[in-house]
Formats: sequence, C-alpha cells, structure tokens
Amino acid sequence: MDRIRRNERLAAMTRILVESPNKIFTLGTFCELFGAAKSTLSEDIDILRGVFAQFRLGQLDTVTGAAGGVRYRPIPAPEDAYRCVRDLAQTLAAPGRVLPGGFIYMADILAMPDVVERMGTIIASQYYRAEPDFVLTMETKGIPVAMMTAKALGVPMVIVRRDSKVYEGPAVNINYLSGSGNRVETMSLSRRAVREGQRTLIVDDFMRAGGTARGMVDMMREFAVTVVGVCVLMTTQEPQKKRIDGVKSLLVIDDTDESSGQASIRPAPWLVAAAEKARG
Amino acid sequence: MDRIRRNERLAAMTRILVESPNKIFTLGTFCELFGAAKSTLSEDIDILRGVFAQFRLGQLDTVTGAAGGVRYRPIPAPEDAYRCVRDLAQTLAAPGRVLPGGFIYMADILAMPDVVERMGTIIASQYYRAEPDFVLTMETKGIPVAMMTAKALGVPMVIVRRDSKVYEGPAVNINYLSGSGNRVETMSLSRRAVREGQRTLIVDDFMRAGGTARGMVDMMREFAVTVVGVCVLMTTQEPQKKRIDGVKSLLVIDDTDESSGQASIRPAPWLVAAAEKARG
Repeated sequence: MDRIRRNERLAAMTRILVESPNKIFTLGTFCELFGAAKSTLSEDIDILRGVFAQFRLGQLDTVTGAAGGVRYRPIPAPEDAYRCVRDLAQTLAAPGRVLPGGFIYMADILAMPDVVERMGTIIASQYYRAEPDFVLTMETKGIPVAMMTAKALGVPMVIVRRDSKVYEGPAVNINYLSGSGNRVETMSLSRRAVREGQRTLIVDDFMRAGGTARGMVDMMREFAVTVVGVCVLMTTQEPQKKRIDGVKSLLVIDDTDESSGQASIRPAPWLVAAAEKARG
Repeated sequence: MDRIRRNERLAAMTRILVESPNKIFTLGTFCELFGAAKSTLSEDIDILRGVFAQFRLGQLDTVTGAAGGVRYRPIPAPEDAYRCVRDLAQTLAAPGRVLPGGFIYMADILAMPDVVERMGTIIASQYYRAEPDFVLTMETKGIPVAMMTAKALGVPMVIVRRDSKVYEGPAVNINYLSGSGNRVETMSLSRRAVREGQRTLIVDDFMRAGGTARGMVDMMREFAVTVVGVCVLMTTQEPQKKRIDGVKSLLVIDDTDESSGQASIRPAPWLVAAAEKARG
C-alpha cells in the first residue's frame, strides 16, 4: 500500500468515526489501518476536533484510561437543535394536519430518515451522561426516532409490543391506562429482550397524559431495569400533570383547531433557553 | 474566519456527505461553506473519491448536468457485504434461537442500529438504479431495516399498518393471506401517505410464503404506485414458490430444528456469487 497522507487519513477517520457514534476507537486501531505512528494520529485527531467544532458537526472526545481512545458524538449546537425543532414545529402546524378528534397527522414526518435522525441526535445529546444500555419504545410510530436515538447513543433499541408474539418467546405482559378515555390495554415484552440491572432511556413519538410511558416504566420495574429518562418528540400542554414525572419533550402542542385544521405547536422551553444561553 | 486548509475541508465534506446519503450537493454549496474556488473543490473531491475507494468506505460520484454535483452512496464492497451477512447468519444460527413453532428469535438483532444499518446499506446498494421514491414496509419488526434502507437511498419510509388508525386520516384497507395457515388479515395505509405515479421498494424482515409482501404489492396497485423491487432480510427455502416473483433476500433459512433449538441459515446465493466475482 502507498504511504497514506494526512488528507486521506482525516477523511477516512471521519467516515469511520461518524458511522459508529459514541463508540471508542483506540489509537491502535487507526495506527494499524493507516500504518502511522500514534503521535501522528494524535495530531490528526486534534485537527479533526477543531474542524468538527468550527463547522458545528458534532463533538470528538479523547477518552483516557485503559479502554481509552477517540469517540464521536453527533451533538448539535444548541442554536442548531433549536432551529431544527422550530422548523419541524412549523411543518406540523401547516393547515390540514389536524384530523378528526384533534390528532395531528405526523406519520410522514416520523418516517423521513433525515428529520428523524436529527431529532434522534438532539434527544441523545441530553442522555450521554446518563449512560443508558438501551433505548426502549412502544410500537409503532415511535420506532424510527427511537432507532435513531439508539444509533446516536451507540446502544440497541428494544420494542415493547401490543401483544405477545409467538416469535419472541416467553414474555411479560402488563396492563396500562391508555389515552384520555382511560382504556385498559396490554403491553408485552420478551423475557430475553433485556437483562436485570441494565439502564434504559424511554423514547416515544407522542405523549398526552403519559399512560403509555407510565406502562413502560412499570414494565421496566418488572425487569429490574433503571429508567434514566423519558423523552418524547411531542407532548400536549394539557394535562400539565402527566402520569409520570421528569418527562422531556422536543415539541409542545398548545392547541389543535379542528375547524381550521391547524395546530399551535412550539419548541419546548428547554430548547429555547439553551439556544439563548449559547447566543450569550 | 481563518483560511480553511484542505485537511479541514476534506474532513468536513466527508462528515456532510456521509450524513445525507444519495443527496446531490452542488460544488457551489461547498464553495460558499469553505470560501474556496470550484477548481480547488474539484481537486478535493478527486482526493475523497480515492480515499473512499481505497478504504472501501462507499462510493463518491460526480453527477453532471444542471442539477449536478457530488453525491455519496454507502455501497459496500461485495466481499464486505458477504462477510456482514455471513456473520449475521452465524449469530442467528446460535443454539437457543429457535422458538416453538420453528420461529427464530431475531427481535434483538433487528433492533441493533449498527447491524440494521449495514443490512440497510446492502439492500439499498441493489436498488439505486431503480430510483424508488420511498421504501414501503409493514409494521413492526421490519421497520428498523426499512428505515436504514430508506436512509441509504435518501428517501422516506412508509409504514403499512395492521389496522387503520384515527391519527392517520382516511385510509385504504385491503385483505391478504398471511402465514402458511392461510389466515385472511387486513392491512391499512393512509390515503395521504403516497402519491399516484411514485415508485417504491418493498422491504421487510422475513418472508415465508410471501403473503404479506403480496398484500403490499396489491396495496400499491390501489395507489397506482410502481413496485421496483421486493427485498427481505431473511426468507425460508421452503416453499420455493412464493406468492410473489422476483424477491431478493440477504439470508436463506434451510431448516429449523426445534429439538436442538438451532437453525440452518446461510447468505443468499447472489451475495456469494458477487463476492466470488469480486475476488476474480
């Protein structure tokens, strides 16, 4: 193999680091791949760190210690996170998205990989320190955003099902209160999906009263798993008192108007505050 | 802003291109971002193209014409695609994964972002030329791999539901034959999810007789959408005659043994042939 120049190493390292967010790569891995000395690679990483910071492309960290190395986290700048969420709010507030019953049509948005990936990175950025072992969601609409959150955190996703399935083996079922009508429903999780003592981040697309999330928290208690956070893409302002505490959301719906077909949607206050603080 | 060096441009461009697969970026976009001349950026892109090829990190294409520019496609080398699928086959063939009824437990694998993303890029690599406008899947287990395929193709995903939901608006329902037991079931798709004249790639996790895929093809006929392909992660060898023609799969199950709890799983012949051809 020809000698590899710095230019080429930087491009290849970027591609490799970005593909596996939150994964620690030892310097040795890159030494071997590029046939370069550790000191050279340390310089490379310093350059990359500067580039990522300058163009607000995420964060490159050097992790010290025995399991040390370099790791990429796609953490957006607070202003960029705010702007993304504000744009999404405007899209969802377009006329015609309010359906009978006051529901908002967002299935199309929830299946656009670029939008969902941006939302996933914003959610993940709030939970790196909590070090979840997996992301938990309930089928169906929340799966894409939970998947992209899991990707950014570098952990698996686990899906709670509405019924136990023959192809998932023995399962734990629990009942929970769903919707504002207080219907009792069942959710099911495969016995082998998670292990006792793990930590989880619960992610879902939508929350009104919080019954589904409450059910997932109760389910995790059955499995002796610690819930490090609950984050949803969108929550309604009312009821203010949810069935669960400490919920974070990216968007807040104040009101839906069925006659105009329009909803009033805004970025959550914490995103606004973070963007203002970053502006100084 | 300080003058940006080639080193830095290459790293930043890599990060930007890789984040949005199959999206064409004009040279003008990068000229503006980096304050560099088009000729300089053309040289940058030549370097990047070489790096991506050398380290088998995907493909960088220059697209000519009015809407021209540069585009990244995460197309794996045939040997790498084969190796990934072979590793997955070995994981799924581990003892204890066969459940009563001959089902294989793969919910955990189907929710690992890195595994699913690799499978999605392998599937996508077969359909760039067919230019689908969206990826279609049926809830629930196929969603992650369909999402990652959609991401690699740079298009949205659309999810067919088991029942019509109040929060998805008017829907088209069709009946289809599911499973080997020939049960009649219903699938539902929101009216506004797709547009007449579009092209779709159908992606799912598993196929036995092909009833569900057949249902999705019939559904697309109702919407006047062209199906450019059907690709599943795993298919059973039997029945050889599926309810639908031209199905591609990454894995083939020959046999499941309930007494040992083990399945016999292998990469599909087209992957083996492509890897052999690449080796020369």
